[in-house]
Amino acid sequence: MTDLAEGGRLVESVLAEYGERVARALDANLPDGILRDLLADYPARGGRRLRPALCIAVARAFGGRLEDALGPAVAIEMLHNGFLIHDDIEDGSEARRGKPALHVMHGVPIAINAGDALCHLALRPLLETGRSLGAEVGLRLIEETQRMGHRTVEGQALELHWRDHNVLDVSEADFLQMILDKTCWYTAIYPCRVGALVALRRPIAHDAFVRFGFFLGAAFQIQDDVRNLTSDFTSYGKEIGGDLSEGKRTLQLVQLFADASPDERERIEQILARPRSERTSEEIHWLYAAMVEHESLAYAEACSHGLAGAALHEFELAFGALPDSRDKRFIEALCRNVLEQ
Amino acid sequence: MTDLAEGGRLVESVLAEYGERVARALDANLPDGILRDLLADYPARGGRRLRPALCIAVARAFGGRLEDALGPAVAIEMLHNGFLIHDDIEDGSEARRGKPALHVMHGVPIAINAGDALCHLALRPLLETGRSLGAEVGLRLIEETQRMGHRTVEGQALELHWRDHNVLDVSEADFLQMILDKTCWYTAIYPCRVGALVALRRPIAHDAFVRFGFFLGAAFQIQDDVRNLTSDFTSYGKEIGGDLSEGKRTLQLVQLFADASPDERERIEQILARPRSERTSEEIHWLYAAMVEHESLAYAEACSHGLAGAALHEFELAFGALPDSRDKRFIEALCRNVLEQ
Repeated sequence: MTDLAEGGRLVESVLAEYGERVARALDANLPDGILRDLLADYPARGGRRLRPALCIAVARAFGGRLEDALGPAVAIEMLHNGFLIHDDIEDGSEARRGKPALHVMHGVPIAINAGDALCHLALRPLLETGRSLGAEVGLRLIEETQRMGHRTVEGQALELHWRDHNVLDVSEADFLQMILDKTCWYTAIYPCRVGALVALRRPIAHDAFVRFGFFLGAAFQIQDDVRNLTSDFTSYGKEIGGDLSEGKRTLQLVQLFADASPDERERIEQILARPRSERTSEEIHWLYAAMVEHESLAYAEACSHGLAGAALHEFELAFGALPDSRDKRFIEALCRNVLEQ
Repeated sequence: MTDLAEGGRLVESVLAEYGERVARALDANLPDGILRDLLADYPARGGRRLRPALCIAVARAFGGRLEDALGPAVAIEMLHNGFLIHDDIEDGSEARRGKPALHVMHGVPIAINAGDALCHLALRPLLETGRSLGAEVGLRLIEETQRMGHRTVEGQALELHWRDHNVLDVSEADFLQMILDKTCWYTAIYPCRVGALVALRRPIAHDAFVRFGFFLGAAFQIQDDVRNLTSDFTSYGKEIGGDLSEGKRTLQLVQLFADASPDERERIEQILARPRSERTSEEIHWLYAAMVEHESLAYAEACSHGLAGAALHEFELAFGALPDSRDKRFIEALCRNVLEQ
């Protein structure tokens, strides 16, 4: 157990250390050819590299070697960046990590193909890990990847459905189910499961790390969505208020709609019924003001803290029996990190 | 050795038989949920199901069981349909198999996600095959799939580059390299390799079926491109002349540009420099007339026949020593089929 500031420093130093290793290994895994620069772009823009770092930390906390977790970690980061490229097109996002989105720079066709390329390429480091740890482990790594990929596209399908049909009457349970699929699985559950798999080299229970990863991933996602509305462009790297103009279903939007008066509901529906490009800046500001008035952001933040607390509880169940290590402390500090922001 | 008409009947009856099995198995592999109808759409529209049928036939010609090849065959068909969904967006195609393209019906975001879903889902029947034939074979199936996926996106990247930068001075060798990657690998080389793999259950030589699949796949692709310009919508199911208005680099376009006068070259470049939507029907007709005048279509057709002949030669090397079987005769008849059209 560490205090918040110390935990924050630990998180930053582990992210920096593992992130650097992953960035170099990812670059070494990009094939020469016409696609190379395109595929290197999003990963080189940085980001926290939280997912691959979590994978490596879990592997090491379970007694595994960094070298064995590096392949899966690279795969996770490739998949993440491939998802981002497609998400940016699907959401009509203009910017990513402080630069224009890939489809804005190169057009939609080339960006779709680049996202596809990263997904195919991600299998390569997994197969190499399989060759070094044995076919049985290799096949389980691919199974985990398939399961995760499927959950991710199912979650994305539900979110796109809500947006396209302007569904606003979303229950909190539906919202959490959607981010479990769309975000938590690949952000936290999958990295934990493959980290443990390369360390233990035996089948991982079907539900292992699912609750832990759900709580942690959801806490991060909800906090991220709140931050999208409360930080400025420079520090955050995405379009400020982009989620609002995109019409993204966030917990604050779900809470706002549930809490709003009939008149307000009608206005929210009208604003979000039109295409993104037709939403005015005045409307975006009205939405934001309504969220402040209905304490939607404070509510979302409180939920994020509650989920982080639940993640800490699950951390004890999933990792508590392991010997103390820097990696174990990093994983715990990640949960507390949400409370600190 | 069979005569052409008999070979044609054999091809049709094997395609019908295996195609039906694959269609049913693919449908059974689609998960219930929000994506089901979307993912079932393109596969249910039909098509010849040539790729999965080739996979099954190769497996059986090598003494394997249809049941063992069915998983990889379903995976191939899923991947093919996933590629088509993304290709249709990337090429700006309006129609597919006689109906509106998926992104025309549901919008680009949902179509991108559906294509992604089919790619992730395709791993599932491969993993099941791996579970039944052993982890070693399973991992090799995934390796083949990774290799194929990578070649496909590389080929697609090159084609998109040519189109976006209006590159017309493409050599025949460059063109053939592009379709080797973009088309032949997943259409013929991959189905043969995984068919042989599930039959033999041991490593397949790195270059096995590469020449055979290249010649066969290229013969089919070039013939398909010629047919795009010479058949009517009903019998063909794609937009007629769609390749021309899309600016697709086909062998007839490559030959036309190489054979054209400086004035003609300039006009071709001008027509293809503008976006697809700005090309007039008069310009498309001029391009077609120029191809007739320069005998571009006859040239492409002759090349397709030459490639089919080369495929027949490679067929003898790759399959000649196997005992006679309906499947072996089917594979040979596929090569001759190109000559018949």
